[in-house]
Amino acid sequence: MINSNIVQTLIDTLGKDSILTHEEAFVRPASVWRAGENLQCKALARPKSPTEVSEIMKICFANNQTVVPHGGLTNVVGGVKTSIDDIAITLERMNVIEEIDLRNKTVTVQAGVILQDLQKAVADAGLLFPLDLGAKGSCMIGGNISSNAGGLQALRYGVMRQLVLGLEVVLADGTIISSMNKMMKNNAGYDLKHLFIGSEGTLGIVTKAILKLEDAPKSRNTALVGLNSFENAIDFLHQAKKNLANTLSSYEIIWQDYYQLMTSSPSTFSPPLPQNYAYYVLIETLGQSPETDTTLFQNLLEQSLENGLIDDAVLAQSQQELDWFWGIREKVEFVFSVHKPVFLFDVSLPITEMENYIETIKTNLKNEWNDVAFYAFGHMGDGNLHLFVSCGDDDEITRHKVEEIVFMPLQPIGGSITAEHGIGLEKKAWLHLSRSEEEMALMRMLKNTLDPKGILNPNKVV
Amino acid sequence: MINSNIVQTLIDTLGKDSILTHEEAFVRPASVWRAGENLQCKALARPKSPTEVSEIMKICFANNQTVVPHGGLTNVVGGVKTSIDDIAITLERMNVIEEIDLRNKTVTVQAGVILQDLQKAVADAGLLFPLDLGAKGSCMIGGNISSNAGGLQALRYGVMRQLVLGLEVVLADGTIISSMNKMMKNNAGYDLKHLFIGSEGTLGIVTKAILKLEDAPKSRNTALVGLNSFENAIDFLHQAKKNLANTLSSYEIIWQDYYQLMTSSPSTFSPPLPQNYAYYVLIETLGQSPETDTTLFQNLLEQSLENGLIDDAVLAQSQQELDWFWGIREKVEFVFSVHKPVFLFDVSLPITEMENYIETIKTNLKNEWNDVAFYAFGHMGDGNLHLFVSCGDDDEITRHKVEEIVFMPLQPIGGSITAEHGIGLEKKAWLHLSRSEEEMALMRMLKNTLDPKGILNPNKVV
Repeated sequence: MINSNIVQTLIDTLGKDSILTHEEAFVRPASVWRAGENLQCKALARPKSPTEVSEIMKICFANNQTVVPHGGLTNVVGGVKTSIDDIAITLERMNVIEEIDLRNKTVTVQAGVILQDLQKAVADAGLLFPLDLGAKGSCMIGGNISSNAGGLQALRYGVMRQLVLGLEVVLADGTIISSMNKMMKNNAGYDLKHLFIGSEGTLGIVTKAILKLEDAPKSRNTALVGLNSFENAIDFLHQAKKNLANTLSSYEIIWQDYYQLMTSSPSTFSPPLPQNYAYYVLIETLGQSPETDTTLFQNLLEQSLENGLIDDAVLAQSQQELDWFWGIREKVEFVFSVHKPVFLFDVSLPITEMENYIETIKTNLKNEWNDVAFYAFGHMGDGNLHLFVSCGDDDEITRHKVEEIVFMPLQPIGGSITAEHGIGLEKKAWLHLSRSEEEMALMRMLKNTLDPKGILNPNKVV
Repeated sequence: MINSNIVQTLIDTLGKDSILTHEEAFVRPASVWRAGENLQCKALARPKSPTEVSEIMKICFANNQTVVPHGGLTNVVGGVKTSIDDIAITLERMNVIEEIDLRNKTVTVQAGVILQDLQKAVADAGLLFPLDLGAKGSCMIGGNISSNAGGLQALRYGVMRQLVLGLEVVLADGTIISSMNKMMKNNAGYDLKHLFIGSEGTLGIVTKAILKLEDAPKSRNTALVGLNSFENAIDFLHQAKKNLANTLSSYEIIWQDYYQLMTSSPSTFSPPLPQNYAYYVLIETLGQSPETDTTLFQNLLEQSLENGLIDDAVLAQSQQELDWFWGIREKVEFVFSVHKPVFLFDVSLPITEMENYIETIKTNLKNEWNDVAFYAFGHMGDGNLHLFVSCGDDDEITRHKVEEIVFMPLQPIGGSITAEHGIGLEKKAWLHLSRSEEEMALMRMLKNTLDPKGILNPNKVV
């Protein structure tokens, strides 16, 4: 039944070039993270324009055909998962940067543009597109919008939601909603774009966007800091926000266990600071005034060392040292080479709760498994931590037990089970911890309104 | 039929103290702007809690009773207009600041808190709530959220949408949606708050919010600048954004006609700069490093004078001078004492289009009326201009003609008929200029989903 009627209809309408059959699509990967896992789908549509996306959706809507939008396939929560019954739509051919408007500081970009390509084009034009994350070489702008990506500079420039000015979306029934607003302020009716940002392709398919650009930074200051008190890490963050003339762009916390792992053999990184501090902070600024920015940065470090707010600090003084410091924070794939299998989490919580939260999880994990590995680090400045847990197995019962330990303590402190990654398929069972029954009902109501047949990214999120 | 059954039901349920009858409500004003215009309504409900708002809505929903949410009654587009058939709900008794969280920099606030009171309480606690606008002494936080207020410092700190972290809302059927998120990043399911921010009370009644706080500024630098070229005003803005270490908080443009009006008798303001410049810019920074901030600010002015980017500049060097400079920009009520009646507009457009746009309007207004008065000024840094037009009459035909002249040129340049004020009743007829048929249909679909009986702020926006 694979080569069913609808696939032929799509081929007849869009041309053979735009529709890959199940067999043709199967040679492609299902995810950039899992080499060897092939794409399973009824067909893979490769539209070249919003009109083609609309045509595809009209046909699928008429046939009650489920559709899964695909960008760079970097999602880590099953948000792009397909079955043999789904039609996948990849935005990869809609990859044109349509306009970089230097005077109004905006870029108009199709959904299939790869983040790194956009960063480069904007930088070549003398400006900055500030979204930055590990998957930038693969992830696409449409996916960044659908998943409301965060990343490494959200502290300074905001998450994706704050960078989107205008949006074009194709609804489940093929309607094209063009809200291509270029303005900072617009109160003319409901701001529809927010429905689609962060809703993981369940309410519409993002096809185009107008994004805010920033001035290219002229200064970058980076240091790795060692601290023995989490309270001090909070105070140091507050001091950094106050005293760095709004240049603070990253404030990344690393718990000792992760630091030790990343700076000990077989890791190739040596430790820039001794391995005995309880916490490490990678602090970075991006600014416009090199001299002033550096002075303020170094003053902050010196004063914080003097008054005992921080215990140690080392500046990155070359590109090599930048790569080294950032590598320790960012090269998380190293964890997977040492431990297998690994459960990966991405929670947010008030920074005042972080210390207790991590201690609680650590204790509970150790109570359950003797030789569990547990690593914590993340965007402390954004209230967002990444957690890695490895306890030997990854069967469903183990997964559930680990999730329970990580997620349950979030509810009483008003935390969220996902700051960046989203819900996808994998976290659906826990969504009720972060959202009330009334909120869930309203989400379902919105889903039913915008996608009455439930064909858009089925079973994800709600 | 005024004292109908439903009013008695409300009294029986909530107590006499919480429900004013038509007669009791009539002594209250319908708007802070129009003294002497009395409040017309079937009854005025004064709930003390979200639960009471919910009870009221359940009764109104069951009885198909229309409801108009009221805050500080400072809306200028008919967004709080009531008829004798409506029940008004004022949030004025829900005016508690529940928590100022200094460590996480958030405030939890009920909808009826007056903006100025919130600003003061937060300042007393050593932080800043950055929303600031002319009506701050009357407007309430719930209204600021429902109308997505902008104001004088949006350039630096964002509009209200960017300041809201968590929201509690009562739906048309009385359901309480509590999304009291405290975190900067949260991707657990749809971000429901954005449905209610800026939708002018047509989708739900805001009852409580968690708002982001900022560090209190330690420096303030202000200058009035004269320029003869709009192109230079754009370049000067770009230079200010680049060279002031992110402290730029206001960039207000004033066209010559408005400057001359505000600095000539019978106005009590004398002109800080000669009256013959084509444009004036009121530029202000708020920062954390007094010495650096002032140096950068003065360097920018000196260099811009030297290289001819600006033609003249004067620094505000005392509170008196601050009041003077800002008074010229802000004391718009003076216009109403000189001209009557006055039509008031609040448009947004790309800054590169502003010069032509204002010229076009001026020409078209003069072609229509010989002695028309036309004043333009506003938040240029946000792409947002306020326009005042007075042409002798304010009958419907005149109003329509003026609106046509102001609004029609916005469509081809992708502008918006309202940046801050919203649609309310008064701009509904023109919404189609800023939004497509498909967008309007989606707005109506959302309205029907959330308010199937159309009882919430009826006939507003959609």
